[in-house]
Amino acid sequence: MPELTVTVGVSPYQLDREILIKLDQCDESGHDFVVAPISNPLFRQKMADALTKGFEDRNQLIQAPFSPQELYLRTSDSSDRLVGLTAEWANLDAKDPAERYMAEKVGEYHPYLSAQKGYGKYGERGFTGAVNVQSNSFVDVHSKVNENAHRLTVETCAALLALVMVGGCLQVFEKELLWASYIGISAIIVPSLNTHSTQFINYARMICRALNDYAFHQLWVRVPLDDLTSGDKQQAWKNWMLLKQMCDYSSKLQIALVIKSKLPDQEYISQWFAEPIKCIVLPTTTFTTNPKGYPVLSKPHQNLVRRLLQFTSYVVIEEAEGELTCDTGNHQKFLRYLAQMQDDMSSLEKFAAGYKDYLQSPLQPLMDHLESATYATFEQDPIKYQLYEKRFWTVFQRTTNSHTGRGPLVDRSLNAAKLACRKVKVYALEKNPNAYVTLQRKMESVWKDDVTVFFGDMRFWQPPEKADILVSELLGSFGDNELSPECLDGAQRLLKDDGISIPSSYSSYLAPLSSTKLYNQVTALNGPAHFETPFVVLFDAVDSLATPQKVWDFVHPNPQLPTDAHSVARVDNHHNTRYATNRFTCPKTALVHGLAGYFDAVLYKSITLSICPETHTPGMFSWFPIYFPLKKPILVPSGAIIETHLWRLSSFSKVWYEWSISTEFASANEHGSHTDMKTSTPVHNLNGSSYWIGL
Amino acid sequence: MPELTVTVGVSPYQLDREILIKLDQCDESGHDFVVAPISNPLFRQKMADALTKGFEDRNQLIQAPFSPQELYLRTSDSSDRLVGLTAEWANLDAKDPAERYMAEKVGEYHPYLSAQKGYGKYGERGFTGAVNVQSNSFVDVHSKVNENAHRLTVETCAALLALVMVGGCLQVFEKELLWASYIGISAIIVPSLNTHSTQFINYARMICRALNDYAFHQLWVRVPLDDLTSGDKQQAWKNWMLLKQMCDYSSKLQIALVIKSKLPDQEYISQWFAEPIKCIVLPTTTFTTNPKGYPVLSKPHQNLVRRLLQFTSYVVIEEAEGELTCDTGNHQKFLRYLAQMQDDMSSLEKFAAGYKDYLQSPLQPLMDHLESATYATFEQDPIKYQLYEKRFWTVFQRTTNSHTGRGPLVDRSLNAAKLACRKVKVYALEKNPNAYVTLQRKMESVWKDDVTVFFGDMRFWQPPEKADILVSELLGSFGDNELSPECLDGAQRLLKDDGISIPSSYSSYLAPLSSTKLYNQVTALNGPAHFETPFVVLFDAVDSLATPQKVWDFVHPNPQLPTDAHSVARVDNHHNTRYATNRFTCPKTALVHGLAGYFDAVLYKSITLSICPETHTPGMFSWFPIYFPLKKPILVPSGAIIETHLWRLSSFSKVWYEWSISTEFASANEHGSHTDMKTSTPVHNLNGSSYWIGL
Repeated sequence: MPELTVTVGVSPYQLDREILIKLDQCDESGHDFVVAPISNPLFRQKMADALTKGFEDRNQLIQAPFSPQELYLRTSDSSDRLVGLTAEWANLDAKDPAERYMAEKVGEYHPYLSAQKGYGKYGERGFTGAVNVQSNSFVDVHSKVNENAHRLTVETCAALLALVMVGGCLQVFEKELLWASYIGISAIIVPSLNTHSTQFINYARMICRALNDYAFHQLWVRVPLDDLTSGDKQQAWKNWMLLKQMCDYSSKLQIALVIKSKLPDQEYISQWFAEPIKCIVLPTTTFTTNPKGYPVLSKPHQNLVRRLLQFTSYVVIEEAEGELTCDTGNHQKFLRYLAQMQDDMSSLEKFAAGYKDYLQSPLQPLMDHLESATYATFEQDPIKYQLYEKRFWTVFQRTTNSHTGRGPLVDRSLNAAKLACRKVKVYALEKNPNAYVTLQRKMESVWKDDVTVFFGDMRFWQPPEKADILVSELLGSFGDNELSPECLDGAQRLLKDDGISIPSSYSSYLAPLSSTKLYNQVTALNGPAHFETPFVVLFDAVDSLATPQKVWDFVHPNPQLPTDAHSVARVDNHHNTRYATNRFTCPKTALVHGLAGYFDAVLYKSITLSICPETHTPGMFSWFPIYFPLKKPILVPSGAIIETHLWRLSSFSKVWYEWSISTEFASANEHGSHTDMKTSTPVHNLNGSSYWIGL
Repeated sequence: MPELTVTVGVSPYQLDREILIKLDQCDESGHDFVVAPISNPLFRQKMADALTKGFEDRNQLIQAPFSPQELYLRTSDSSDRLVGLTAEWANLDAKDPAERYMAEKVGEYHPYLSAQKGYGKYGERGFTGAVNVQSNSFVDVHSKVNENAHRLTVETCAALLALVMVGGCLQVFEKELLWASYIGISAIIVPSLNTHSTQFINYARMICRALNDYAFHQLWVRVPLDDLTSGDKQQAWKNWMLLKQMCDYSSKLQIALVIKSKLPDQEYISQWFAEPIKCIVLPTTTFTTNPKGYPVLSKPHQNLVRRLLQFTSYVVIEEAEGELTCDTGNHQKFLRYLAQMQDDMSSLEKFAAGYKDYLQSPLQPLMDHLESATYATFEQDPIKYQLYEKRFWTVFQRTTNSHTGRGPLVDRSLNAAKLACRKVKVYALEKNPNAYVTLQRKMESVWKDDVTVFFGDMRFWQPPEKADILVSELLGSFGDNELSPECLDGAQRLLKDDGISIPSSYSSYLAPLSSTKLYNQVTALNGPAHFETPFVVLFDAVDSLATPQKVWDFVHPNPQLPTDAHSVARVDNHHNTRYATNRFTCPKTALVHGLAGYFDAVLYKSITLSICPETHTPGMFSWFPIYFPLKKPILVPSGAIIETHLWRLSSFSKVWYEWSISTEFASANEHGSHTDMKTSTPVHNLNGSSYWIGL
């Protein structure tokens, strides 16, 4: 059974010695890797000095290659055990002394500018300006100020100053990225900026470049799992979302999630499960101390970390600023202990572990002949067949007519009849010529006279007599998606007028869903048709955005059908077409990647089975949910209406689904008036062009 | 010179005779084509009757082929002069007697349903249901009502009834589309539905199908140019937008714009200029009568129709409901008169007429050698060279050094010097070996000793002496986009310390823009790289969403440059990189397709030239604006902030632009609280991957 694994690293805020010595030291204390800043304070000093120079000298200083003395990460030795960290001090948002220092240095240089309090917010009203991004061109500002002092407002000067610093910071950022790429370290952590920051857009652009052009294995964006006491509780998530959009939803963009002492509410935690978390960052301050003096995590933190370890095994223990010790050995041991703690896993969980977020194309049981291994997998489900037996037992006052795979339904029928002390006659009908061989052998060796096995398609077969009970096992993850309605319509003429169908009805359910992982997996399949194909998948790295709602149902036997309708689907299948729309209120601002589909079924009277999350039949694992993807994810504001549209359509030879999502919300403008907004995705899988199920 | 053409058709609400007779009649009165309903009242009656039947009979009636008696459009004869019209009575929204009749018929059929007042709005709270879309399955509802009467609320029944009717209407719609496609008529007009209507989504899906699978030349959606006295003034536009989105911005989707007596405000008219108007529909009620009793249009209507005739020549005169006359000959004659009315066209307009909305790749004058015809086109501009002459005249106290194409600048310099009674020495420098030949011949035949012609690149050329004035003509549609900054940097060493550059500075401007036509044209170029390429284009079918804002400027000579900087761009071009952000408030809900770029320049002191719409130099046509496209259009709510981001970046061998647009607005939820929304496009042309200008 799968075990949570953990790869623990340590992140020193500052380093006072050679990185290789540090690595040795960490080896001794059991850490797997070290997160280290790329450059050191000497470089930082040089950059601050550069700002005080004139045009040419400054540019030369900034563009000069690193000297080895300015770097922590110097060689490619042990680069597989190093994660790089770009300079935090190049971040204008941070309340960092170096930043203030840079600001002061600039201020000293020109008294007019130093008179400003702080530096203005770029993009504020009254200033839309331009600077030489990469040149850190203070001279530019300088000359402008002299020349046009009468035109420049105080605000403008402050904004220009902020922009100059942005330029410098970006050059530092780019320099470090290129160096880290050159020495081939395995991953790099970059800061996450507030989207309101003066440099966010340029920072985001640099990340795009790095993802496109530089040779990193991994790029992790530091994202705080904050519980803000005031302001927008989704601020960090929204910042991350804007970065994703600028990078066109690149699958290379991943998260280093920083977990602090105070955790937010569950809904603001679960939104991150839909995002690509590749690294968990635990500052030492997040740990508490147990009575014996060892560092431990609170129960909620433990649960969260164990959940996150299902997505990634990388954990970084981050030492507090200024601490130069390497005393995180006990933190690391606690994490390993945590990862090895065993939960009691149900048989469902054990079975499921290997299938999480794995996309499977839905079966085509009518058009294709299934393989024996497929049957074997289904037959492992202990619960489904118990329910069928219970159901047989309930209705066994009559003879039975069963449609089967390798025979488990027949076994259960006979068992139930025995318990009910009823003599039954079973006709087993199979359309798969290979499964038919197995059934014949079983008839000869086990069932004997109780069962007669036939070879044929239930839609066309002529029975020796009509049956009291028609038992079938044709349900798919979405109920009707393996064409149970069409098959049972065709078999309805095998049933007596007051005959019973097991199952007697089934319903489909839908809910909007967020999952970057599923989106990336469909993208990786390479081809637009995959975004118009539903997939069977066990959801794991997802955020469910609403309780599923019923979309439609089917009832058997169908009272609408003409009697003796032979293979009705081939002639007229209109009664099995459907259109459904459902409305969900989006509980928080969310990125919708598609729809999650489920079903439940009434086997007979009160005996039901369900794969809907809220009503899931315990322990049953025959069906995973279905996923209807969207070509492009849609960002939906909190409180908006998500309206889903689903069609089940049919032609002479096939059945298919089409789907579309529209959103509705009101947008408020600065004057407080509202405008209604309604948006829609394209109709997916129009006319079954990408996906269909053969009749 | 181009003339507005008009192709006038007539649209009868009802027809009382054979369509071919009607066509003959219209020929006589001078109409070019006839818009005719596809089916006639017999079919309508049959469909209404169908609803009263049971499952099988009803389905048979609906699915049966048309009988010839049920059709107005029967054969493919004259199909090129026919435009089809799908049944208006299949529209649940319309206040149509047939619709009420159908509703009543259904009501009679089941007393329980007929007890309901009207039919509920589909999608209302409490009902999310499904019906058999294509089967019009009233029996389904019927049996459900019987079976589950205790479970069904009044509301649900009403909604189900509405859905049943939707099913029927859609089948009628599909039948007509398929027939029209079969007989090969040239275009078809379909109704536009309110997005709040019960059948909008299914209607939109059917349009998608028709666009994808049916063989129409053209499909025109009827869209009213309404001036609503209450409610959302953009409602019709928003309905159209949602339809576009569901059809994934298909370029086949076009508009039949219905112009009524009362026109809306200009901003709600101009939004339609950005949309694909293929047909103008003028109900006879929109006309007024002049003193002589003839039908005419009001002045504002005349102006609008003349503007729209620049996009399409198709006009339909629509007879009022119930009128069976064909007396629209005078309306038609007025329209032909209107189209032939001549405005005084300026030379700019005459020159421009052939270039409207035609995408051109920007020139690469530095990397490529331009052709003589290109120079000839530019030399047609009478205004630009007047300005240059004026400028020379102003500054002629010194000798001149000119950089040129085929010599118009040299001519103007000499003229100006003569006027100023100054003796000047002109060095003409040309890097294009072919243009150099022309210059040499001109020197020998015309200029003689006044001018010395040299062959070379201004960035590398060694002059016999330094100049007082450096004249160049290197500006592109966006000012710096033909690398004027880099060229003039390299030529700065040719100038004396107190020398003058003409132009002395230039600035670039941007504004967000909507234009389906430009978007469709870039799409037609087939390849994602085209969406990352700026195009030079004369805007016509566009809606400008804001006054352009300045993004950045360049000044020459550049005081920052080291003296004697040889070909500085090749060594360090950082001082010519730029980043600019601008914020625009979106005046109405709009679909943004990209950015419009302009420039203005100071030649010398107060002599300027501009191609910005508000300050355009009158009569000058050397430059059309530039268009930065977006890969996918973005829908921006009224009052939202559109933030543009533009970079000018440089490497050793090339210069390029990158761009991105973000939006900001507040979304209000049902409880009245707001959430901030910020979205962004990807960064376009990252690292110059799709488009760059060679150094």
